[in-house]
Amino acid sequence: MGVASQPSRLRVRRGPKKGRYDRASVDGVLDRGLVAHVAFVDAGAPVCVPMFYARVGDHVYIHGSTASRAMRRLAAGAPACVTVTSIHGLVLARSVFEHTANYETAIIFGVFRPVGPDERLAAFEAFTEKVLPGRWSEVRAPSKKELKATSILAVGLSEASVKVRSGPPDDDDSPDAAIDTWAGVIPLALVHGEPEPSPGLRPGVGVSPSVKRLLEESP
Amino acid sequence: MGVASQPSRLRVRRGPKKGRYDRASVDGVLDRGLVAHVAFVDAGAPVCVPMFYARVGDHVYIHGSTASRAMRRLAAGAPACVTVTSIHGLVLARSVFEHTANYETAIIFGVFRPVGPDERLAAFEAFTEKVLPGRWSEVRAPSKKELKATSILAVGLSEASVKVRSGPPDDDDSPDAAIDTWAGVIPLALVHGEPEPSPGLRPGVGVSPSVKRLLEESP
Repeated sequence: MGVASQPSRLRVRRGPKKGRYDRASVDGVLDRGLVAHVAFVDAGAPVCVPMFYARVGDHVYIHGSTASRAMRRLAAGAPACVTVTSIHGLVLARSVFEHTANYETAIIFGVFRPVGPDERLAAFEAFTEKVLPGRWSEVRAPSKKELKATSILAVGLSEASVKVRSGPPDDDDSPDAAIDTWAGVIPLALVHGEPEPSPGLRPGVGVSPSVKRLLEESP
Repeated sequence: MGVASQPSRLRVRRGPKKGRYDRASVDGVLDRGLVAHVAFVDAGAPVCVPMFYARVGDHVYIHGSTASRAMRRLAAGAPACVTVTSIHGLVLARSVFEHTANYETAIIFGVFRPVGPDERLAAFEAFTEKVLPGRWSEVRAPSKKELKATSILAVGLSEASVKVRSGPPDDDDSPDAAIDTWAGVIPLALVHGEPEPSPGLRPGVGVSPSVKRLLEESP
């Protein structure tokens, strides 16, 4: 899909070469991210709250208490903007002006719809598997009461775009390249530490296979 | 400052024990965070974009191109919500329902003001020092042209709150604690990798003292 075919609020204006609009790019950023920032309008003013989310096919699910202001506003059809950002590095240039960061961000505009009974268990599975792949089959499934206390909403990906900044600083080809200052990228990544057992963990219960796999894959 | 004295939109409603309103808590979350999600309203709909920022005293600065839609709307006095979130861990419970994450988030409501000539260099210094402490004195200062091309805005911290989730899963004292499944926290942290020199780096230019200090402090 080309840039020209995008609705105007979707088009990446600043640094248009950084924009992506294809679904593979959108899915990639959403699937690599961990937290979404969800914005809506309340009494004329913007509100932006962090939320856990999961993508399944053409939708992003969010969940929260049925009593939360954000979930109530969004369930009522308030227009929403869902933004997922991951930081990949600090970009150190020779000048103050060219300092920046490498990142990828996905922005979705849309209106959430409530998720009905048939879809709720699948959404819960997606949330759990996003926290840690394989976890769903290791833990107690949600009770009827728990399912009822949770508001689950879905938004489509028809108005989604991605912006990416990657690579070295932009001043390699400028007169600043003559300055005697180190320039480059310091990579950043969200990495896990050693698992910390819950104080109430029963003696003799070892780490779950899902946790073991995580440790083996990225020790 | 107590919870009761907070304007209503600031009050943390879900999990009120997770709320903090004192300036030390707000400053801490802002100073530890790296990216802000800034929300504003455009043509009636919310827009939420990631931005770099820096706190100096009682203000948070953001910067961007004078041509960007977000900076133009915010400079014109559009109400804003600035949210900074850091993730500290995955919380693995014995039930699907109790899975969550440990995090800290600061939310600021306010209206940005344009930053005048006298304050602009100090704001630039704050941005640079937030990317990497000590970097400001190693690099070329902004030119007049660069200063002119950048919009710098400030928002006060009078309407700011913090929400924190920390510690083990909540099901240690529930019947679920009898389940034979590992429960606990997998800590997460944004950590840096080996510095990657820019392809155009002049031969013989070693890493800057600021980079060296970063590597020594957290190898």
